[in-house]
Amino acid sequence: MAQTVFVPKESLADEGRVAASPDTVKRIKALGLDVVVETEAGRASRILDSDYETAGARIGSASDATSADVILKVRRPTTEEIAAYKQGAIVLATMDPFGAEEALSAMADAGLSAFAMELMPRITRAQVMDVLSSQANLAGYQAVIDAAEAYDRALPMMMTAAGTVPAAKVFVMGAGVAGLQAIATAKRLGGVVSATDVRAAAGEQVASLGGKFIMTEALKDASGEGGYARELTDDEKKAQSELVAGHIAKQDIVITTALIPGRPAPKLIDADMVASMKPGSVIVDLAVERGGNVEGSKAGEVVVTKNDVTIIGHLNVAGRIAATASQLYAKNLYAFLETMVDGESGSVAIDREDELVSATLLTHGGKVVHERFGGASTEA
Amino acid sequence: MAQTVFVPKESLADEGRVAASPDTVKRIKALGLDVVVETEAGRASRILDSDYETAGARIGSASDATSADVILKVRRPTTEEIAAYKQGAIVLATMDPFGAEEALSAMADAGLSAFAMELMPRITRAQVMDVLSSQANLAGYQAVIDAAEAYDRALPMMMTAAGTVPAAKVFVMGAGVAGLQAIATAKRLGGVVSATDVRAAAGEQVASLGGKFIMTEALKDASGEGGYARELTDDEKKAQSELVAGHIAKQDIVITTALIPGRPAPKLIDADMVASMKPGSVIVDLAVERGGNVEGSKAGEVVVTKNDVTIIGHLNVAGRIAATASQLYAKNLYAFLETMVDGESGSVAIDREDELVSATLLTHGGKVVHERFGGASTEA
Repeated sequence: MAQTVFVPKESLADEGRVAASPDTVKRIKALGLDVVVETEAGRASRILDSDYETAGARIGSASDATSADVILKVRRPTTEEIAAYKQGAIVLATMDPFGAEEALSAMADAGLSAFAMELMPRITRAQVMDVLSSQANLAGYQAVIDAAEAYDRALPMMMTAAGTVPAAKVFVMGAGVAGLQAIATAKRLGGVVSATDVRAAAGEQVASLGGKFIMTEALKDASGEGGYARELTDDEKKAQSELVAGHIAKQDIVITTALIPGRPAPKLIDADMVASMKPGSVIVDLAVERGGNVEGSKAGEVVVTKNDVTIIGHLNVAGRIAATASQLYAKNLYAFLETMVDGESGSVAIDREDELVSATLLTHGGKVVHERFGGASTEA
Repeated sequence: MAQTVFVPKESLADEGRVAASPDTVKRIKALGLDVVVETEAGRASRILDSDYETAGARIGSASDATSADVILKVRRPTTEEIAAYKQGAIVLATMDPFGAEEALSAMADAGLSAFAMELMPRITRAQVMDVLSSQANLAGYQAVIDAAEAYDRALPMMMTAAGTVPAAKVFVMGAGVAGLQAIATAKRLGGVVSATDVRAAAGEQVASLGGKFIMTEALKDASGEGGYARELTDDEKKAQSELVAGHIAKQDIVITTALIPGRPAPKLIDADMVASMKPGSVIVDLAVERGGNVEGSKAGEVVVTKNDVTIIGHLNVAGRIAATASQLYAKNLYAFLETMVDGESGSVAIDREDELVSATLLTHGGKVVHERFGGASTEA
């Protein structure tokens, strides 16, 4: 009998994404697995139950989780969800594992093989499985749409019979995947775009999108592991901050995207800088879930300061364009799942020698096995 | 003593626009008039009291209306506001005069010279005073921003490691000022844009913006007065409707902008067409204040249909980008005011022989004088 893949409706409030699309359902079926999708799982991502059925899935209910061999999820399963899964089940999700020791133990105790998709190594073979990139790209896009919606002026220059409307000045801090898409989208909308990053290599990418790259002389390069930045020294921070302070007072829209892996997000904008901005300016803090890049940003809230600057701190920004986010996320998961399916038997097998597996497998055989979370090695 | 121009804070809830900008204050001063701006009048348009002061205005309170010779407003004055104005005062505003006989009588009884800016003739000399165009342009822009914000997918095509995201299909109905800006903005954002209009001349303009023009063969041309469309015959309506029905089912975003002067907006999209659209599709009905182009749209509301189509019916869409809207509106009013100021004496005089005056003057000398509202001529 074929093994079964289950795709639940996400239980977290405001999570509109879903871990499979009609396209990936078809592909999983082609690998020899059965697929059961919980009813309405795709609704908020604009996928109808009938779309999944046409692709070959059976529409089921939450209770179908109990017999599934593989569970595809967006978010880490809750305690209730874990309790329903059968021993030995494979779970692929964004597990948000840092500081989640209790949840990891629970998954280990339940005998799950839990994979954290966000720990996928940034190597060529795994690009198609890179959920951080696929979702950050969309967050960068949506950040500009959210900013444009909140902004009380038009972004493009407009030459009208009643005079010329100047283009908005948009400043993007952090030119990683999210930042580059924010630059591209702001350019599309006609903004005058500048950007900064502590990694010197970002300069060329910013310029290729038509943005002006701004970097302090004091800082040669702060590239770190996996394409992220390292933390700056105090002197570097000070020089960067002075540069930013002068620039930010002239901006209409600022989008911050700076993250350092495993650490709180760096503070890039302090209250004085916010106070220096014109009324009606908009800041989008994409790092707000990790503590925020902006003094005064609040997770899940839109704050208006005393000088009428709007600071947007939406959570789960990729989830704000759930339909596209799900399409790409589903493909990321499918691509990884495919590597674990044995072509002959059509069953899923975990090869712990595979570097993709060792990088992402959190729990297995009743234990936390990932070295960064107290597994095999004790390195933190 | 110089005559005084007063700029109040708009009293209507959710009206963020203001009828003067620092730029127009400076220009009005240069004409020899004094300017008093009510405190916080510009706040929602991101203009500080200090900005007006720097431009030469005095910051006052609502009670300064009583001594003003000219009042610049966005909306028609309320009964309370009218009571405060002195006899003979000139009021420039969008008066929304159709069906507002009571308000017109009140302004006449108060001895006001009330001008309806939206009746400005569409002639070359008056382009700079055309409030309908300046505000419709911004409404067209904002309609696309509102649609993009509500839409659960990205608008541009995106080629990513996890697959290609298709571009959104955007359909604009009515290619007047608002429609053309909607086409331009949707193109900027990467949408695949088509448009329709009953005026044949619109085809070239749509094409020049990169949109695909769609028009039924049965309809050669329905251009009417002042650049607007005439009402269609029943046969024409039917042919147009069949064309639209087939097209609309494939669209992701639809923006409707069709108005006929002095009549309710034409119904372009019926409930069956809405029901034919995919879940997650977004319709923006820019004609909702005039009855709407879309069956099921509601003034001031965002409706989600049973098949998960979002119908946006925001009122005062230009007011949703108040800062830019005020900049252009203020310029429109200034340009008209300037034509009424005598260069020698620096005082405002109404020349009823001027075609701009005769087209826009509603009340004067204690009477309703505009021929379309029961004045001199009785034509309706």
